[in-house]
Amino acid sequence: MLVVMRDLATQSEIQHVVEHVHEAGAETHLSQGEVKTVIGVVGEREIVYALDLEGFPGVQEVIRVLKPYKLVSRDFQGEDTVVTVGTASIGGGALGVVAGPCSVESADQMMRTAEAVKAAGATMLRGGAYKPRSSPYAFQGMGLEGLKLLREAGDAYGLPVVTEVLDVRDAEKVAEFADVLQVGARNMQNFMMLEELGRMKRPVLLKRGLSATIEEVLSAAEYVVKGGNRDVILCERGIRTFETYTRNTLDLAAVAALKTLTHLPVIVDPSHATGRRELVAPMSRAGIVAGADGIMVEVHPDPERARCDGPQSLDFEQFATLMDGVRPLAVMEGKRLS
Amino acid sequence: MLVVMRDLATQSEIQHVVEHVHEAGAETHLSQGEVKTVIGVVGEREIVYALDLEGFPGVQEVIRVLKPYKLVSRDFQGEDTVVTVGTASIGGGALGVVAGPCSVESADQMMRTAEAVKAAGATMLRGGAYKPRSSPYAFQGMGLEGLKLLREAGDAYGLPVVTEVLDVRDAEKVAEFADVLQVGARNMQNFMMLEELGRMKRPVLLKRGLSATIEEVLSAAEYVVKGGNRDVILCERGIRTFETYTRNTLDLAAVAALKTLTHLPVIVDPSHATGRRELVAPMSRAGIVAGADGIMVEVHPDPERARCDGPQSLDFEQFATLMDGVRPLAVMEGKRLS
Amino acid sequence: MLVVMRDLATQSEIQHVVEHVHEAGAETHLSQGEVKTVIGVVGEREIVYALDLEGFPGVQEVIRVLKPYKLVSRDFQGEDTVVTVGTASIGGGALGVVAGPCSVESADQMMRTAEAVKAAGATMLRGGAYKPRSSPYAFQGMGLEGLKLLREAGDAYGLPVVTEVLDVRDAEKVAEFADVLQVGARNMQNFMMLEELGRMKRPVLLKRGLSATIEEVLSAAEYVVKGGNRDVILCERGIRTFETYTRNTLDLAAVAALKTLTHLPVIVDPSHATGRRELVAPMSRAGIVAGADGIMVEVHPDPERARCDGPQSLDFEQFATLMDGVRPLAVMEGKRLS
Amino acid sequence: MLVVMRDLATQSEIQHVVEHVHEAGAETHLSQGEVKTVIGVVGEREIVYALDLEGFPGVQEVIRVLKPYKLVSRDFQGEDTVVTVGTASIGGGALGVVAGPCSVESADQMMRTAEAVKAAGATMLRGGAYKPRSSPYAFQGMGLEGLKLLREAGDAYGLPVVTEVLDVRDAEKVAEFADVLQVGARNMQNFMMLEELGRMKRPVLLKRGLSATIEEVLSAAEYVVKGGNRDVILCERGIRTFETYTRNTLDLAAVAALKTLTHLPVIVDPSHATGRRELVAPMSRAGIVAGADGIMVEVHPDPERARCDGPQSLDFEQFATLMDGVRPLAVMEGKRLS
Repeated sequence: MLVVMRDLATQSEIQHVVEHVHEAGAETHLSQGEVKTVIGVVGEREIVYALDLEGFPGVQEVIRVLKPYKLVSRDFQGEDTVVTVGTASIGGGALGVVAGPCSVESADQMMRTAEAVKAAGATMLRGGAYKPRSSPYAFQGMGLEGLKLLREAGDAYGLPVVTEVLDVRDAEKVAEFADVLQVGARNMQNFMMLEELGRMKRPVLLKRGLSATIEEVLSAAEYVVKGGNRDVILCERGIRTFETYTRNTLDLAAVAALKTLTHLPVIVDPSHATGRRELVAPMSRAGIVAGADGIMVEVHPDPERARCDGPQSLDFEQFATLMDGVRPLAVMEGKRLS
Repeated sequence: MLVVMRDLATQSEIQHVVEHVHEAGAETHLSQGEVKTVIGVVGEREIVYALDLEGFPGVQEVIRVLKPYKLVSRDFQGEDTVVTVGTASIGGGALGVVAGPCSVESADQMMRTAEAVKAAGATMLRGGAYKPRSSPYAFQGMGLEGLKLLREAGDAYGLPVVTEVLDVRDAEKVAEFADVLQVGARNMQNFMMLEELGRMKRPVLLKRGLSATIEEVLSAAEYVVKGGNRDVILCERGIRTFETYTRNTLDLAAVAALKTLTHLPVIVDPSHATGRRELVAPMSRAGIVAGADGIMVEVHPDPERARCDGPQSLDFEQFATLMDGVRPLAVMEGKRLS
Repeated sequence: MLVVMRDLATQSEIQHVVEHVHEAGAETHLSQGEVKTVIGVVGEREIVYALDLEGFPGVQEVIRVLKPYKLVSRDFQGEDTVVTVGTASIGGGALGVVAGPCSVESADQMMRTAEAVKAAGATMLRGGAYKPRSSPYAFQGMGLEGLKLLREAGDAYGLPVVTEVLDVRDAEKVAEFADVLQVGARNMQNFMMLEELGRMKRPVLLKRGLSATIEEVLSAAEYVVKGGNRDVILCERGIRTFETYTRNTLDLAAVAALKTLTHLPVIVDPSHATGRRELVAPMSRAGIVAGADGIMVEVHPDPERARCDGPQSLDFEQFATLMDGVRPLAVMEGKRLS
Repeated sequence: MLVVMRDLATQSEIQHVVEHVHEAGAETHLSQGEVKTVIGVVGEREIVYALDLEGFPGVQEVIRVLKPYKLVSRDFQGEDTVVTVGTASIGGGALGVVAGPCSVESADQMMRTAEAVKAAGATMLRGGAYKPRSSPYAFQGMGLEGLKLLREAGDAYGLPVVTEVLDVRDAEKVAEFADVLQVGARNMQNFMMLEELGRMKRPVLLKRGLSATIEEVLSAAEYVVKGGNRDVILCERGIRTFETYTRNTLDLAAVAALKTLTHLPVIVDPSHATGRRELVAPMSRAGIVAGADGIMVEVHPDPERARCDGPQSLDFEQFATLMDGVRPLAVMEGKRLS
């Protein structure tokens, strides 16, 4: 951490900062120029992060060189984390393809979808039982009944299942039915839920928050890993910007950047990112080239009848076509569909 | 709701949409031009919002004229909601002034702060016992012990207390100690928590999410009110933009807009919005002139020693000066400090 | 400037940076910790800013402590710059009120508007002759004819006039008719125009770009002042964010911040910022309390017939009411209408 | 265009709007529901766009279904526009690769770069002679001398050259030396420059503005094409968001979207978009898969000595490696390097 003092900072103000750092148990290195004094602070992450020197007299700026995360960083672990669920893996060369409807609506819908996405090459099945909706008047999901239908469809076709935990109090119950627990974008900084999932044994699929920085995504993942659960999959699903043509702005440079910063697998959700069916396939493919370890795509037997996210859902044929476009790219990128 | 059909939409595509709407129990009104056909959809909010027509063949765009909230709107209730807690009120001409430290740190800190802010004119005491922190390595708050210290300080000086509910499972426990339950920006769309708070009897202070639109803020409030809890205070605390000089971008036009759209009281948090001590007073005052029903300000006996948010905290003297600047404006705006 | 080296930077990489800085004519101060080495760079602004060390081997980050502007900063000049045009002043306690239509449409429109805004207390008249429009199919302004009508209306009622220079080639011609030359938000970083206006004798009203940071606004102003023209008025007119309810997001904290960072006068344009008539008055008043030296408001004899910006224009009565609300605040803030 | 009337709009308010539209020469189609009346407006783009009905009494919202551009749309011209300059083409299956330094610095730098990028497969040479810099203290480019060096290097290696027009007054002069005239992001809505370039015979490379929507990009291109110059290449170079890890946020969904909305070629600039050398190659490749007709990459003989944009520039070897990664993707996408 660097503490940049104001031009007119007095010697006693500088001394004051230095002493405070020492008391806390960290060390300082002074760089005194004619104009500027900069105090370097070195020490344990926990100690350095607990220092709030911005408010000290004479302090102009505090620059945190140390990252707010450790366990999830590439520096800490060089080789890729591979998250394996049953027969499916994501990371370390294994490309995950998660497909399924926005929300579970019926047994028939789930069975047909599982069959179709399996045939097209998906490695996991998704489906929302608890839906986060901006308005309390929108469809909120089938709940427990939905979880069961999802599980049955997954079992019937040998697909591990992914679903969202919307309420931390439901985490255990959801874990009875799901192989991977999804944290939605709106809960990315629901730290209590992250800690709870950190104590569980199920892999976590952590979606980037609507306005979360890359550093915040990694810090959120750190909560889970620090709790003891190392199986975290990150998911870029678009960020909120001024652009309204697409539902969100898919940040593929974040995918490439994350692959350099962390050993955790990173997947892309082009459906929520774009909100437009015609952009799902190109963005799936671009995501893989950007370095993603997988994609998550909304597929529905009859998108126009979907109870949510119809405009961004693919039908079975469209999904099969998408997969035809994905396969040769996966090969080229040295990824295997497993 | 308006369903705008594509230029080349066929008669059967139009008919298809119309029938679907009718089946769902809503009515349609057609406007057929030479180029464009627009289908107006009228009906119960619940029905209209459950329609997901974007995915239908021939549909170009769906425009939701109906708002996704009802109970919180000015149309539904013309007169201001006044939230009263003990001796303090917010809304309907009553100006609330919530002051206190970012986090509860000690009995002495809380007692001294309560005494000082009370003397300066604050009407409520704030203090965080559970802190949402981006990094798991940052100070997370004193927890239950912090709640008790907050309560004691509030009682000692006759100030109702406000604190954040970080974990929905703690809501009941927090409600034992706090008069007003705060929902933090990162939990604004934690819908399960909103529903839980909607079933409770404590007023809720709902902070705007970092990238939440005005409509989403109102929809989040609707969750609470729909649950049966009508005492919701909205709080503008800055949104996330490209600007880095301030911590967030305080959106005072949203305050003025909210006052026209909803009957709920709206307060401003200039501390988190700006992240800079020197901007807290001018933004408090500007907020009141923009129509806010109150302010929430971070105050600490010794900001440079604060365990969080030091750079944006005021000391006692600065807060007293702020209040001196607020009072004449409150009078001018026809507000009373109570 | 601080050059933060990577953890593994070699001694020769450090030496390499140091030598490069010395060659350029600046000095270095090393801070070598066990983990991090930080090189402080001190020297002439021109030299330090010409160094592009980010690409050097071993460099992790370059932190520019020195601001990219000088002449416009408070450090350089402590007292407020007062821009005076004829009878009207802005800055240093003088509150400027610029009012008039979005675009000049007719002699009658301009004369009636000038009369009305003068009566209500405006100190300057605005009106666009050349209009920047996103679409080439929208009304582009009356051009030279508009300039003349604006001038005549200003002269008739003793109001200095403000109008936009859309094309740098027209600057001289516009200056024949206008007292203050406006640079629109979309031209804020049209550096060639800024340099041209820096060589002219007319005061410049510089609007903040749609996504310009505070630092970029000040750097743009620096271009004009560096060219020799010290009469620059800054104008906050809202920035582009994800919020769609308002046309832009008015950043009043930027106004308060600018007042601490620069000696130049700062005004607020609540009309473009909000795009909504009902928000213009509260935001005008909030702007003044935030520290603005003036406001710029769109006024039209018949807003519903306005050729542009109708929804945000006030009619004469609404403007008079706004001024009634502004006056007591101006007094309270120690400002005089002149 | 749809004019949505307020719930309580009177019959005379509705009539008032209808008459105004008719007077202007357009037609109306009424959709009157029990609650809502919606007025459809149909007519010539010029007429409909000149209507500013938002301010009319009783009007709640005006929804523009008609796009603000025409000539650049896919509806207007189905087949791809191919921009050809000498031996190089962009669009219609031809992949353009524009490479070169941020700024022209010396004859040696340009010659060596031209040789290297040509050898690696670039089809055009770039280099800035006039540099738009936020601060007046940063390096502003070599000017005319730079233009000559660029031209000579292009000629020596048979590469058409691209450079930015920073000042509309220099357009003719720049056109003497350059084959393609670049409009920088900060000038995307410098409409006077767009009109001037529309009257010229040189192809235009139009970069997306920092906060320009897709619709605004197309409207800006419409200015050029409407002026008579049909050779416009669009360039996605990242938009400004809250994310600070990358310099901008590359919006590849915009590329895929643009390819559906317009017949103009679209290229990607991963250098400015990311600001980070290690992200340039993955984003180049992802861009091509997203549908881009080309890439524009910053290449410098000695990036650490570059006078601008060093951190995002590739050296010759890195660029050659990038091209090795691009070629097989181009083949797969059915594009040819020409």
